[in-house]
Amino acid sequence: MDYRFETDSVGEKKVPAEAYYGVQTLRAKENFNITGKKTPEVQIRTLAEIKKACAMANEKAGTLDKTIAEAIIKACDEILNGKFHDQFILDQIQGGAGTSTNMNANEVIANIALEILGKQKGEYQYCHPNDHVNESQSTNDVYPTSIKMSLYRTGLLLAEKLDELYRGLIDKSEEFYDVVKIGRTQLMDAVPITLGQEFHAYASAVERDKIRIQEAIKEMLTINMGATAIGTGINTTEYYAEHIVPTLSEVSGLPLKRCEDMVDGTQNIEGFSVVSSSLKTCAIGLSKMANDIRLMNSGPRAGLGEITIPAKQNGSSIMPGKINPVIPEVLNQCAFGVMGNDFTVTMACEAGQLELNAFEPVVFNRIFDSMTLLINGVDTFIHNCLEGIAANKERCEDLLNHSTGYVTALSPLIGYKKAAKIAKDFLKDGTPIMESALAYGITKSQLEQVLNVNRFTPKFDKK
Amino acid sequence: MDYRFETDSVGEKKVPAEAYYGVQTLRAKENFNITGKKTPEVQIRTLAEIKKACAMANEKAGTLDKTIAEAIIKACDEILNGKFHDQFILDQIQGGAGTSTNMNANEVIANIALEILGKQKGEYQYCHPNDHVNESQSTNDVYPTSIKMSLYRTGLLLAEKLDELYRGLIDKSEEFYDVVKIGRTQLMDAVPITLGQEFHAYASAVERDKIRIQEAIKEMLTINMGATAIGTGINTTEYYAEHIVPTLSEVSGLPLKRCEDMVDGTQNIEGFSVVSSSLKTCAIGLSKMANDIRLMNSGPRAGLGEITIPAKQNGSSIMPGKINPVIPEVLNQCAFGVMGNDFTVTMACEAGQLELNAFEPVVFNRIFDSMTLLINGVDTFIHNCLEGIAANKERCEDLLNHSTGYVTALSPLIGYKKAAKIAKDFLKDGTPIMESALAYGITKSQLEQVLNVNRFTPKFDKK
Amino acid sequence: MDYRFETDSVGEKKVPAEAYYGVQTLRAKENFNITGKKTPEVQIRTLAEIKKACAMANEKAGTLDKTIAEAIIKACDEILNGKFHDQFILDQIQGGAGTSTNMNANEVIANIALEILGKQKGEYQYCHPNDHVNESQSTNDVYPTSIKMSLYRTGLLLAEKLDELYRGLIDKSEEFYDVVKIGRTQLMDAVPITLGQEFHAYASAVERDKIRIQEAIKEMLTINMGATAIGTGINTTEYYAEHIVPTLSEVSGLPLKRCEDMVDGTQNIEGFSVVSSSLKTCAIGLSKMANDIRLMNSGPRAGLGEITIPAKQNGSSIMPGKINPVIPEVLNQCAFGVMGNDFTVTMACEAGQLELNAFEPVVFNRIFDSMTLLINGVDTFIHNCLEGIAANKERCEDLLNHSTGYVTALSPLIGYKKAAKIAKDFLKDGTPIMESALAYGITKSQLEQVLNVNRFTPKFDKK
Amino acid sequence: MDYRFETDSVGEKKVPAEAYYGVQTLRAKENFNITGKKTPEVQIRTLAEIKKACAMANEKAGTLDKTIAEAIIKACDEILNGKFHDQFILDQIQGGAGTSTNMNANEVIANIALEILGKQKGEYQYCHPNDHVNESQSTNDVYPTSIKMSLYRTGLLLAEKLDELYRGLIDKSEEFYDVVKIGRTQLMDAVPITLGQEFHAYASAVERDKIRIQEAIKEMLTINMGATAIGTGINTTEYYAEHIVPTLSEVSGLPLKRCEDMVDGTQNIEGFSVVSSSLKTCAIGLSKMANDIRLMNSGPRAGLGEITIPAKQNGSSIMPGKINPVIPEVLNQCAFGVMGNDFTVTMACEAGQLELNAFEPVVFNRIFDSMTLLINGVDTFIHNCLEGIAANKERCEDLLNHSTGYVTALSPLIGYKKAAKIAKDFLKDGTPIMESALAYGITKSQLEQVLNVNRFTPKFDKK
Repeated sequence: MDYRFETDSVGEKKVPAEAYYGVQTLRAKENFNITGKKTPEVQIRTLAEIKKACAMANEKAGTLDKTIAEAIIKACDEILNGKFHDQFILDQIQGGAGTSTNMNANEVIANIALEILGKQKGEYQYCHPNDHVNESQSTNDVYPTSIKMSLYRTGLLLAEKLDELYRGLIDKSEEFYDVVKIGRTQLMDAVPITLGQEFHAYASAVERDKIRIQEAIKEMLTINMGATAIGTGINTTEYYAEHIVPTLSEVSGLPLKRCEDMVDGTQNIEGFSVVSSSLKTCAIGLSKMANDIRLMNSGPRAGLGEITIPAKQNGSSIMPGKINPVIPEVLNQCAFGVMGNDFTVTMACEAGQLELNAFEPVVFNRIFDSMTLLINGVDTFIHNCLEGIAANKERCEDLLNHSTGYVTALSPLIGYKKAAKIAKDFLKDGTPIMESALAYGITKSQLEQVLNVNRFTPKFDKK
Repeated sequence: MDYRFETDSVGEKKVPAEAYYGVQTLRAKENFNITGKKTPEVQIRTLAEIKKACAMANEKAGTLDKTIAEAIIKACDEILNGKFHDQFILDQIQGGAGTSTNMNANEVIANIALEILGKQKGEYQYCHPNDHVNESQSTNDVYPTSIKMSLYRTGLLLAEKLDELYRGLIDKSEEFYDVVKIGRTQLMDAVPITLGQEFHAYASAVERDKIRIQEAIKEMLTINMGATAIGTGINTTEYYAEHIVPTLSEVSGLPLKRCEDMVDGTQNIEGFSVVSSSLKTCAIGLSKMANDIRLMNSGPRAGLGEITIPAKQNGSSIMPGKINPVIPEVLNQCAFGVMGNDFTVTMACEAGQLELNAFEPVVFNRIFDSMTLLINGVDTFIHNCLEGIAANKERCEDLLNHSTGYVTALSPLIGYKKAAKIAKDFLKDGTPIMESALAYGITKSQLEQVLNVNRFTPKFDKK
Repeated sequence: MDYRFETDSVGEKKVPAEAYYGVQTLRAKENFNITGKKTPEVQIRTLAEIKKACAMANEKAGTLDKTIAEAIIKACDEILNGKFHDQFILDQIQGGAGTSTNMNANEVIANIALEILGKQKGEYQYCHPNDHVNESQSTNDVYPTSIKMSLYRTGLLLAEKLDELYRGLIDKSEEFYDVVKIGRTQLMDAVPITLGQEFHAYASAVERDKIRIQEAIKEMLTINMGATAIGTGINTTEYYAEHIVPTLSEVSGLPLKRCEDMVDGTQNIEGFSVVSSSLKTCAIGLSKMANDIRLMNSGPRAGLGEITIPAKQNGSSIMPGKINPVIPEVLNQCAFGVMGNDFTVTMACEAGQLELNAFEPVVFNRIFDSMTLLINGVDTFIHNCLEGIAANKERCEDLLNHSTGYVTALSPLIGYKKAAKIAKDFLKDGTPIMESALAYGITKSQLEQVLNVNRFTPKFDKK
Repeated sequence: MDYRFETDSVGEKKVPAEAYYGVQTLRAKENFNITGKKTPEVQIRTLAEIKKACAMANEKAGTLDKTIAEAIIKACDEILNGKFHDQFILDQIQGGAGTSTNMNANEVIANIALEILGKQKGEYQYCHPNDHVNESQSTNDVYPTSIKMSLYRTGLLLAEKLDELYRGLIDKSEEFYDVVKIGRTQLMDAVPITLGQEFHAYASAVERDKIRIQEAIKEMLTINMGATAIGTGINTTEYYAEHIVPTLSEVSGLPLKRCEDMVDGTQNIEGFSVVSSSLKTCAIGLSKMANDIRLMNSGPRAGLGEITIPAKQNGSSIMPGKINPVIPEVLNQCAFGVMGNDFTVTMACEAGQLELNAFEPVVFNRIFDSMTLLINGVDTFIHNCLEGIAANKERCEDLLNHSTGYVTALSPLIGYKKAAKIAKDFLKDGTPIMESALAYGITKSQLEQVLNVNRFTPKFDKK
């Protein structure tokens, strides 16, 4: 294989001739072989946008030669057009607070730019990874900005997916509008409800979680570009400091804003915990819904059997004809993954020291994983489960009619104690509730009024 | 001891004659001997407000006799005046979704009301815990409302305490405005900063966390009063359903609002996870600050020694003269407690099933514990540590001057590579950085301009 | 109030005349007002044993005057006899790695000893908290030893309680030996099982967890007495170093042993994480069992209804006659608490730095809480739930007979595919499984053999 | 592309002609697109061993035709020889308790066997994935067994890696045997220690964690093969039930044993939590060590600077000459990942219901991730950090000599109070400690004896 030689503080090293990355990327590649997961595409693009915006701002500030700036900008555009993504070869988890990924971007962009300038890869005197591509920057502003923008964008995708779920649940709530059934508290027979109300409740929770995530990811729009190493803005010009955030907003199309306190913005990264927490909270709701659906689907004969979810695959390698709720189960597992990731994010955010938190890579790795789990889990849930859920209306009615679900409604007429007696008699001897009620002096018309299921069930508006 | 007899669904039971609580409270007392922590005062008051508002609404709705209503209202006022708190005898953690605590309130209020009405305790035919005090209510709306209001109020106290911390940190940032020191990233010498900037960064983080908590606890203002058992509003009148939330707002002075989807609002309690997460995020920032302060205070001779925190007690039982950072250490531990509590809250919120989450008691117990830990931890931190922190200005300057902290500033003039060489020479042979810089052709006036610490240090405005 | 004056490194301070604690305890009291939970009794006793053993060893080593040693020993015996426990006034969570609690013990013992010696409290020249009571010791060996011994003893109580639970479950498994029912995987009807087998499975899991806890707490028997400040044994004599652990073993009756590497034993405290993890693992099993019992008890009419747990209290403030599974629910909540505590313990154990982990107080506070939660939760579960669980035998048979539970057994005779067809037909048209089987050429005698429930159900030996 | 048609309970489906997997695998592929991580190689091999052992046992039991058995065994051997691994196409996280991965194995093996038998892929009448390859098995015994064996083997690799780390640390402890330095508790100057003792302490902790992991993974050797669906052993022969575990032991070379209570062994999976907890506990120790190394390496000028870790890459994109502790930082992040994974495992283990825990896939996914993180993190730590750590001996001595590290040793001679005064004077006025000591009447020879660092430092035996 052909090589070129590159040098850094550690010494000289052979780099494959065709590689656009350089010596620093190579060393990091050897140091960090941890998860097998590389820089995700969204972050590669984001890094290109940042480097492009910086070149634009530096050129206007008069500190970056126009020819070099233009070459850098073109190089970034190549990456934004989907090229050179295979040159981002590093593991997501790495020491050094993301320096390696930042240098990977700097080196790749420098070498693309060099070719644009008609130079050879490695001739960094014409376009240097640090002095030109990374000018006015530090890993400590570039890297967190790149992961914030990446999480913002991935978070938007998740919000969209949750919106799709919301609409799917609303559709079901309308489909099940008239399916009256027994409501259960603490798994015990309680009072009547409709299946439509239940799905509407899931929809409401999902909608709320979507909004929370949309709010939480806004934390990701406040960036510290211009902070450089520790927030003091060392090695930036005044022009650059003022213009880099607006320029990056324009390049990226995102409504970014600058941290008010840049020192704080560089060392305190608990904003990531906010995002992770919003995912965790969403996972709570999704897991609870999946649990409910598995419960209501239980059976087909010896369970609740109130709904039937679509058969997506053989349920068992040994039990013929068994169909299992595999899709809700996978959603549960995604939720558990998200919750565990939140612990990791908590630990990592807490572990910052003085001017920097060096653990941003694992923070990104885990939040990105959480978002991916939720997007994928919700997607299969919508298309392979939710859309095909059928209500077992007769079964629902049957269970309701054989329960004490109506007794509570008698309480205001005869008091808690007598109503309790009626319930007890029904459960013990099967004495019909209506019969007992009449015996206590409730009139038929009172009964009809009180027991009209419509009084206390469908309350939501169809859309 | 004197007794009266009371009966419930389980049977008859002796109740101490002087007790205002009744049979149901007594049974719960026997069932739940878990944490030793009882209903906190804030929740006792909140329950009284709820019961009062319900009596008002029921009376106006025409379903509660005026005399009884007035007795209930007076009874609640007694509790609000601080009386009868010893009658709330139950453990915070209990099965049954809070039914026992709700019944404890119902029974105590009924018996106080009975005495107001000139009756004997236990003569429930005149004022019944369920039929009158709990009229139009269910544990499933009363209990979550009571813990939401309690957490909102305690959260406000925490926000105030954080505000006090914020102001204390701002004061320190101004006191340390001119203390120039080396900034450190990844614990390694980086570039100059001021101690003032560092304390300002802590202040900024605390301020942000305060705002997040203030936002998060607003979730607690959306309540499901009127939902009764499962959100369908069974056993409420239209008048009551419309008026209970505004009435409770008036009684409590809190800007409460009704859940839009009451079924959802009764079964999905992930809003508590939002509050808990905001506390966890706050704990991250506080723990990081405590860690930094312990680091900067390390020594007095063989550590960083940049600051000195006040001596609050002998540090060691064996090492004479040792003073330890006991106060930041206790803040760390409070933070760890909060983070663990968040796990419990996550588990409990996820474990809801169908129409109810029965695990609200442990959710409340742990979030209330988190808030208490933070309030107490921050309080001792402010008064027993922060206020007395002194800067060791000379030591700070010394460390800065013996480090490579200024080399980075040379980079824009001579490039990364040459600057790295200067740093290396300084660390190896002690060649003064200025000298090397001149040898590379940087002029003295350039140096003066570039190395002016004011360029990149104090950037925040004094207040 | 009467006062005496005491002095420490911080200065002079008034101490209530009647107090046996001194100035250092008082300062700590002011510094740490965190949880409201004080030194638990088991730890008070353990501290007395440690101080007693140290006095014995020091006296024999010839470094502690016999008269003083005897006074200290007598003072410790007083505490072991249950006196002076109210003099331990400090919060469980405190900064300083437990120095305050250690000094609380030192001061109380010194003052009791002084009175035994006919001196006044505070005349420390005759018996000094540091020089005599704490001789050859440091907080850094005394405190971790005291919490290890406390957790070992409390862990034993938990193991006993789990053993009681195990026996209760075994009893139930025998009571339910013949209750045949449908087994469920993924909540879906699977194949037959007995209720006895299910309770036996719970018993097996509990037994395993008990053994794990018994193993885990053995980590607590390896102590670092003699390590003093950092494990190097500074300020101990050779005699003391060799004899303190055996002496403490004798005094306490516990089979203690000395860390092999005392430096390690002083700074690395992950052994506490081992204990906490064993509690967490136990909590997993208990919570799963509680969940199952709540599931099988669900109904009474619209749920599984396979068992009925005893009614311990009214289930609802609004729904008459409702009985809820309050006891399993409280066990779930205890389990959630334990799991969250494990997170806190993880954080705190990780946060040690160099020669010490200063966060042992919160580690102790949380593990002790976990043990307490489990002991109390299991206790109420045994006595208020398990013992009264009744099987609904007919319901169990009914559900089994209406399910496809027997189809799997046909597979070996006719293959998975045909068996699946039989299941499908049964579920669709109600075609009896036996009938279909005969149609596929299975003989009656084959059927009888294959479907004999005894073939695949009760496999455990009755005890 | 060429296709064949296959049918399952859901219906008919096109399968690529060249695929060895079949219709059930394909459906699962469509249902579960979650993590992008496929069945790891160790699990593929393990599945082949299980299927091989089952064919052997079934053949001997007389229920599986010899020709088919031999073809299955040969097919498994092919997989064990490294072939067909690309046919395992499913995501690690899946619903259905692992049924899809089990069926993937069944289908691949059936089709390889069919070709061995001279048949076409898909001609399952000659060798059926369920009836032959899966004979006497259920996902519910095969899948947990496969993940247990996989984790056992990966756990052994981790233990080996920890052993390598242990030896590396021991080497360093000997290299640093004579490097006397100040010990620090709570980051404050305490008493003397050697760097060798510190590294020996890390070694001791690692050794302990290695042993704990070796113990914990033994839980993975107790398997439920023969349990089939729910532990009752339905559809197994007596011969098979008795012989499958010994046969699998022989095939795999692992000392496997059968669960005593197979119902328990199928539904209670908290043994995985034991393994995960042991990894978490190990992560605590590794993270603490990484933190210490970063602390001691801090500087190079304005930190502790007691050691220097090898420069593995440029530390900063902006700060020339900066070298960062990237390798310990990556180890910290691996540790954080492991801790978060433990939360997920806890949640998933708790979520089992009745006869099965359907969440084993995520349990495996996360524990396998934890083991991988630890193996990779420790590996880079050994080779890219530990081996090159150098002690800065002079700096260590310097810091010690300028601290109060020796004062504690004076305490036994003159008492705590006077020693404290000496420390105070030294810190305030620089009064030399020796001088003060002499003034208090300590003789020179006493001083020499007491201050001899060898008395309280190197205590471990060189190996």
